[in-house]
Amino acid sequence: MKKLILDLDTGVDDTLAICYALGSPEVELIGITGTYGNVLTKQGVRNALAITDMLGHPEVKVYEGLAHSSTTDDFSVLPISAFIHGDNGIGDVEIEDSERVAEDVPAVDFIIDSVKKYGKDLIYVPTGPQTNLAAAIKKAPEIVDEIGGVVLMGGALTVPGNVSACAEANISQDPEAADFVFRSGIPATMVGLDVTLQTLLTYKDTAVWREKGTYAAGKIADITDYYIKAYETTAPTLHGCGLHDPLAVAVAVDPTLVTCLDINMKVDTEAPTRGRTIGDTDRLNDPVKTMKVAVGVDVPRFLDEFMTRIGNLVAAAK
Amino acid sequence: MKKLILDLDTGVDDTLAICYALGSPEVELIGITGTYGNVLTKQGVRNALAITDMLGHPEVKVYEGLAHSSTTDDFSVLPISAFIHGDNGIGDVEIEDSERVAEDVPAVDFIIDSVKKYGKDLIYVPTGPQTNLAAAIKKAPEIVDEIGGVVLMGGALTVPGNVSACAEANISQDPEAADFVFRSGIPATMVGLDVTLQTLLTYKDTAVWREKGTYAAGKIADITDYYIKAYETTAPTLHGCGLHDPLAVAVAVDPTLVTCLDINMKVDTEAPTRGRTIGDTDRLNDPVKTMKVAVGVDVPRFLDEFMTRIGNLVAAAK
Repeated sequence: MKKLILDLDTGVDDTLAICYALGSPEVELIGITGTYGNVLTKQGVRNALAITDMLGHPEVKVYEGLAHSSTTDDFSVLPISAFIHGDNGIGDVEIEDSERVAEDVPAVDFIIDSVKKYGKDLIYVPTGPQTNLAAAIKKAPEIVDEIGGVVLMGGALTVPGNVSACAEANISQDPEAADFVFRSGIPATMVGLDVTLQTLLTYKDTAVWREKGTYAAGKIADITDYYIKAYETTAPTLHGCGLHDPLAVAVAVDPTLVTCLDINMKVDTEAPTRGRTIGDTDRLNDPVKTMKVAVGVDVPRFLDEFMTRIGNLVAAAK
Repeated sequence: MKKLILDLDTGVDDTLAICYALGSPEVELIGITGTYGNVLTKQGVRNALAITDMLGHPEVKVYEGLAHSSTTDDFSVLPISAFIHGDNGIGDVEIEDSERVAEDVPAVDFIIDSVKKYGKDLIYVPTGPQTNLAAAIKKAPEIVDEIGGVVLMGGALTVPGNVSACAEANISQDPEAADFVFRSGIPATMVGLDVTLQTLLTYKDTAVWREKGTYAAGKIADITDYYIKAYETTAPTLHGCGLHDPLAVAVAVDPTLVTCLDINMKVDTEAPTRGRTIGDTDRLNDPVKTMKVAVGVDVPRFLDEFMTRIGNLVAAAK
């Protein structure tokens, strides 16, 4: 069975990513590594523990990752992130703290150990900055050839960025780390704004979950409604919220949900295009392409899978 | 039979575009409209007349287009353009002036009249700025629905620009005109740096033409060699010259040479991304896509067609 590690800055769509993974019988979620972005790393770890408990999956271990980018000494949550995800990262919805804590093993070591253990069966799904993965590759470069693959939520190739004209939020947190990962040769599929802004969720959808009647169903619906509400301000033309992180998990489970362009990518680290994900002209004609960029998505099929898997999961929870 | 109008700022690869069109029995080149960019409009018209004469096709009429962008009063050739195409636009190679002159009808009117006459059989192929086409659409908006299509050389969606991090040379000459065309709803295929930098020509190829022994064969080889030489300086990692303009003509003749992404596009007109061609987020989820962007090209098949068609053409000329 395919093994998944989710690398999350557990905000709202990260929560939905956990739900999608736990609602997918085809894969085993072997762990969550924590990163920063939507929230501080420590808050994200807290949320990941609490969410997995609430969903009835306390067996999912959580590992604390790096707290800031590879080029800074510190990290503060941007006001826009707090606006979109709430101060606590999960739509300011209160859920009980877990009695568990993060594992002793640091996230970077857990990633490396898991590649050694599961090899090609392991898919690593980062939905925040690439900081933990870059650090893992620097520590154990051979994992690039040993891992099954990476499916990352981040970047924007054919559409503008969402934090600047060129940069998408996750990549912009640590462009140097992302550039290192993109040029490392690791097999990676980029699931960026190109496709995630095509997969929209509305209040009508969260109402369907709420009707399942469980505690978890209500909480997941409340958390998501906060996010949909924020989208009404930040992206009024979209008429829904983007399903960024869960789409990356869905592609890790079933790559046929998207159509991809095979292309060797880089990340710009200099102004004014800092954080841009773009084809690497120097490797444009290299017949070996190590990356795929999702440029099309089967929206009805994904939304159907999404609603079914998350609906079943929250209905079965307490 | 499919009718083609080429809109050219006749420099080196524009010359090869003329060769490709004249070497393609599937299409009829009904006229060339002149624009600015690689050269001044008047110099480009002069070159187009001289080249068609030299190739034994004095029946191809040439129409003078606008001399500068929609937002400026003047145009000067950039030093980099003169470096790449030579001061005279055709690699500083001397060829005889034509005894013909441009037609009395302005390019913009010729474009509109041709759409009225040929409708869906007409393909318009601009390989410079979009200034003439934008003016034609402004004068006769209905041509958007009446024309067969546009196949344009310009832009860069999945790779960086070539005059700035974001902007490709043709689009950067008149971003406002290009944005107007891209959002006009006209059915257009963008053949940009994404694919044109994959189709490279080398001295070995021009030597094959030269061996045909005709005057035209020698001149076309000389003109192209100047361009390959310039590429050794401007793009030393490519190991050849990009076949920008002829690839657009080839796609107009045979669209199956490229794989395309269906996407509604816009052009940024504000700094720092002025001149960038990018997906229009506001129309991302519109089921009607009016543009296609070439993101893949069958390189061996195109190069084979290119060498055969141009080889046959120059061999048959005087």
